[in-house]
Amino acid sequence: MEEGNGVGGGDAGQVLAISIATSVKDDAEAAAATPRGRWRVALPPPRSSWAKLKARTMETFFPDDPFRRLHGRRPLISKCFLAAQLIFPVLEWAPAYSLPLLKADLISGLTIASLAIPQGISYAALANLPPILGLYSSFVPPLVYAVLGSSRDLAVGPVSIASLIMGSMLRQAVNPSTNPALFLRLAFTSTFFAGLVQASLGILRLGFFIDLLSKATLVGFMAGAAIIVSLQQLKGFLGIAHFTNQMAIVPVMNSVFHETSEWSWPTIVMGVCFLTMLLLARHIGTRRPKLFWVSAGSPLASVILSTILVFLFKAQNHGISIIGELKRGLNTPSWDKLLFHGSYLGTTVKTGFVTGIMSLAEGVAVGRTFAALKGYKVDGNKEMMAVGIMNIVGSCTSCYITTGAFSRSAVNHNAGCKTAMSNIVMAVTVMVTLLFLMPLFIYTPNVVLAAIIITAVIGLIDITAVYHIWKMDKMDFLVCICAFSGVIFISVQEGLAIAVGVSVLRILLQIIRPKIGIQGNLPGTDIFRNLHHYKEATRIPGFLILSIEGPINFANATYLNERITRWIEEESEEQISLQFVLLDLSSVGNIDTSGVSFLMDLKKSTEKQDLQLVLINPVGEVMEKLQRANDLHSLFGAECFYLTTEEAVISLSSLSKRNHNNAQNEQIV
Amino acid sequence: MEEGNGVGGGDAGQVLAISIATSVKDDAEAAAATPRGRWRVALPPPRSSWAKLKARTMETFFPDDPFRRLHGRRPLISKCFLAAQLIFPVLEWAPAYSLPLLKADLISGLTIASLAIPQGISYAALANLPPILGLYSSFVPPLVYAVLGSSRDLAVGPVSIASLIMGSMLRQAVNPSTNPALFLRLAFTSTFFAGLVQASLGILRLGFFIDLLSKATLVGFMAGAAIIVSLQQLKGFLGIAHFTNQMAIVPVMNSVFHETSEWSWPTIVMGVCFLTMLLLARHIGTRRPKLFWVSAGSPLASVILSTILVFLFKAQNHGISIIGELKRGLNTPSWDKLLFHGSYLGTTVKTGFVTGIMSLAEGVAVGRTFAALKGYKVDGNKEMMAVGIMNIVGSCTSCYITTGAFSRSAVNHNAGCKTAMSNIVMAVTVMVTLLFLMPLFIYTPNVVLAAIIITAVIGLIDITAVYHIWKMDKMDFLVCICAFSGVIFISVQEGLAIAVGVSVLRILLQIIRPKIGIQGNLPGTDIFRNLHHYKEATRIPGFLILSIEGPINFANATYLNERITRWIEEESEEQISLQFVLLDLSSVGNIDTSGVSFLMDLKKSTEKQDLQLVLINPVGEVMEKLQRANDLHSLFGAECFYLTTEEAVISLSSLSKRNHNNAQNEQIV
Repeated sequence: MEEGNGVGGGDAGQVLAISIATSVKDDAEAAAATPRGRWRVALPPPRSSWAKLKARTMETFFPDDPFRRLHGRRPLISKCFLAAQLIFPVLEWAPAYSLPLLKADLISGLTIASLAIPQGISYAALANLPPILGLYSSFVPPLVYAVLGSSRDLAVGPVSIASLIMGSMLRQAVNPSTNPALFLRLAFTSTFFAGLVQASLGILRLGFFIDLLSKATLVGFMAGAAIIVSLQQLKGFLGIAHFTNQMAIVPVMNSVFHETSEWSWPTIVMGVCFLTMLLLARHIGTRRPKLFWVSAGSPLASVILSTILVFLFKAQNHGISIIGELKRGLNTPSWDKLLFHGSYLGTTVKTGFVTGIMSLAEGVAVGRTFAALKGYKVDGNKEMMAVGIMNIVGSCTSCYITTGAFSRSAVNHNAGCKTAMSNIVMAVTVMVTLLFLMPLFIYTPNVVLAAIIITAVIGLIDITAVYHIWKMDKMDFLVCICAFSGVIFISVQEGLAIAVGVSVLRILLQIIRPKIGIQGNLPGTDIFRNLHHYKEATRIPGFLILSIEGPINFANATYLNERITRWIEEESEEQISLQFVLLDLSSVGNIDTSGVSFLMDLKKSTEKQDLQLVLINPVGEVMEKLQRANDLHSLFGAECFYLTTEEAVISLSSLSKRNHNNAQNEQIV
Repeated sequence: MEEGNGVGGGDAGQVLAISIATSVKDDAEAAAATPRGRWRVALPPPRSSWAKLKARTMETFFPDDPFRRLHGRRPLISKCFLAAQLIFPVLEWAPAYSLPLLKADLISGLTIASLAIPQGISYAALANLPPILGLYSSFVPPLVYAVLGSSRDLAVGPVSIASLIMGSMLRQAVNPSTNPALFLRLAFTSTFFAGLVQASLGILRLGFFIDLLSKATLVGFMAGAAIIVSLQQLKGFLGIAHFTNQMAIVPVMNSVFHETSEWSWPTIVMGVCFLTMLLLARHIGTRRPKLFWVSAGSPLASVILSTILVFLFKAQNHGISIIGELKRGLNTPSWDKLLFHGSYLGTTVKTGFVTGIMSLAEGVAVGRTFAALKGYKVDGNKEMMAVGIMNIVGSCTSCYITTGAFSRSAVNHNAGCKTAMSNIVMAVTVMVTLLFLMPLFIYTPNVVLAAIIITAVIGLIDITAVYHIWKMDKMDFLVCICAFSGVIFISVQEGLAIAVGVSVLRILLQIIRPKIGIQGNLPGTDIFRNLHHYKEATRIPGFLILSIEGPINFANATYLNERITRWIEEESEEQISLQFVLLDLSSVGNIDTSGVSFLMDLKKSTEKQDLQLVLINPVGEVMEKLQRANDLHSLFGAECFYLTTEEAVISLSSLSKRNHNNAQNEQIV
């Protein structure tokens, strides 16, 4: 053991253990046993404010250091190619693309196309838009994503939640049945803004915004949205013509049971049959992943079967409503339909923001989930740019909001897709449908579309996750319930806002009331741990050792001051010998001016009570700021800082004993 | 040293220091030196969810344990008296009140009355209210506060900031010159709501809300408000009759320089003289605390002197505007003037909320400041109730918003006040003025009132504090600047909202991007510290030791995952021998479901890379939740937890060396 090292290891540790446990060490020995260690609390190496700002900015906005790959020594051409790969991930896989990969992507692409076509039509209806928009939106955006996106499993297209939100928010401004042309223009404009928001978040590297949607929030929100979406399907399912425009559970149930005269029994019978079939297929698909094609193919099979049935029995004359004529042909340009002025600008910006954030959260979460399964990485900010550009392009080519859909991506993954080529295959299939197969959908009954949507969204209700959250964390469960009931009783946007608000409030509350623990010594060691956690830990007479967990700032400085003062008071009442208050700052990562003032106030007030306040292991920034405050007020001398609790305890107790002896000696003299 | 204790102290520490520094220990010895310590990471003692909820609620809402004094064994009568003292702090000092105390309070009470009368009249004008309201508000509220308040130094009455805010917010709804009666009703109603908000915060023990106004916010806000208030005084100072209704700096300067024809030179000359005199007196008062009476008495002296001058020279006929007739008599009841319905309810609630919070923050801060100087305690929540009830009573007796004023409390303190009796003395003095002396104010020129306000608010611009904040913390400085420029360029409320928003965002950003540090060993010890803080700390080959500072939750789980994964990747590229990733969780006070998922994901991904993930010292709640997650997934075995970094390093390196030797032996065999 090196000399001059009195901390923790070797002799000192032994002395500590014994001196604390038995308190029979004599003065001289204790003093000898605590040479000032050669390690003291140091100031972190000086850095300019500029260097600190740069480091903090890098860490905040570029934690993944995206240009890392470009740093090494390489020829310019290779660097350019790497840079191009950063922007167009297609360049990562396209050069090495091979026939076996194509085969896999072909199968998975066709599979998701069979799912995307009926779902596309259904989701467009959910957003109060013409059904054909669902197909348009399954054609252009997947092509854009295949070039820009970094996920290999994401199946891109319209999704239920974003469709629902867009439909319900725009419906508050314009009635889609009386003014469909304006409604369509607002939908394109909202999609444009959604894309803009998404791309901006990516470019400004503000991706952490979507992290504010915690898993608990999403689970509750999804479940609520699934119920709202399913309830909306009662319109098509029961064949009701006059249905409420509202989304919340109460008006919808009112509407359903006030219009019983409109219920169409042939529609209901057909709906129940197909719903049963679809749910059964879904059950098989989830139970046996190998039979994924059963559930993946069932929507298209239902559409074909029901269309044939309607056509054969002329069921449209018996009260079963059908889709009707759909225009043949590819997407038409729609940039001239974007509305950037007038009284609807506020509505479209707001709708774009909410749908943009929600669809981004869904897309990124889905991408990350499957990337983790396959062991590759999805860059959140890059992904946001890809989804954003895809939606901006989409808004100019008659598409509405799209993102990566969970159910289709899962099918894509199970079908064995290898690259984003499966999206291209899907897009080509949709193109063929748009060009040649549209007349086949004339007789497709709306009730089957309703059944397809219900089957799709039921998977969003994740009871296991709710149970897991309940088990793990009651506060998270509360957040989940807030999101759920907010969505079903108030509205989709407000439910989301409430849940995010509660989650953020919870974090703030943790800051406002940081944990403070009394530390004790684990007998026979030099380790100090929380007394409430380790029941065997013992207090050291004369010492009050507190550890603060979390940053010290304006929001908690007053609380900390009052709480610690109360502790010291209670302590002084109990043990008269209290001499030292040790504040373990190891866990305090940040401090602000109010925090520093609190420490200085505490120092002053302890001094008034003849107590010595000692700070243990202040880290980087905290030590720096204390030093700066000291330059102004010089309250904390070097004797107030210790690197470890054990060092402080040994050194201070020997000091106090010596003082005590000196006092006794003086009395004797 | 006890046996079985291998951690940190004694042999193990020595072994660690040597084995790490030199790496020449042989296998057998190292293995022998690391017996499993008898201290392992333990689960905290089990507590029911109810007990946890109760403890958390107590800590959140009753950190000061207000009923502590009632716990002991005492006769019922004594308990009742103590309980009454909790509600009426007057019972704490009144029973022991004595003649010397009265003498001190009489002097200080008269001094603050001499300040309160001219300031009261001026501040009421600032709020666009009849001047007499300032006197009414200096009569009833101080009496209420004397009974309920726990501060001994607070001088209660109207204050500049709250007057300014109330005036400017109500003026947006009603013009005070064209409809003074309605304006008055709105002012009383807003005061009522302000009192309600204040009392509710106290009763619901939500006092921590006002902690969100950090010192940096307040310094910037006060300075901005002082400038806004001073600019408003240009109306009286220059004698302009047609003045803008807006508060921000640009319209006011426009107004001043567009109406130069209205400038009244006699008014300006008189104003400059009295302002110079008042500033001089203030300067003397701040330089020599003993001469506090010079600055305390100067406003009243100015009022008397200027009134005599105007009266003698009939100056009102030469363009100097005067207060005019004031009604003699005490406060009239005003509960019938409260407006709880109609279109102004929103305005009054909002005004009440903002002025309530602001005046509460001022009152509580002032109370705490002087309590700390004298070494007694002010209970924040009780203080809020006192201020709230005082304003509710005030709103029913023709008073507008009042709180503890900084300047008058400072004078009160310097004049040697002992108890809240000084407030009673002040109230009685104001009462005498109201009853008999009102005719004397007829000829008081408005310009002197403007000069008094300017002198009072100039003290709110605290350059030293701004410099201090700049030195300590650049982010706090930014908050301060935001508040300042928001107030002077946009509006008082919005400036405040922006500053609070920026402060809260800053806290959230600290959570979203928690600090992660690489730890190294301080040579010759068993201490591990951040490599960037302690340059001498050395890495241990084969180990990556990371410490996370701050809670792990939904807002940072993704970031932590990406950042740590990137670190592991970079590390594996640099040193091929990387075997162990140690995550020091000592500083992680809270974790939620997303946080637990992150740890489990990290465990899985490290396993895929043949790395061992070890968690160091998870504290209370974190360990509990990990245990619960383990019950569901059993990912973390007992071998994944260590109580200290040194123990983990010793134990794991001996383990790996043994495995290595075994592998070699096998190869030889």
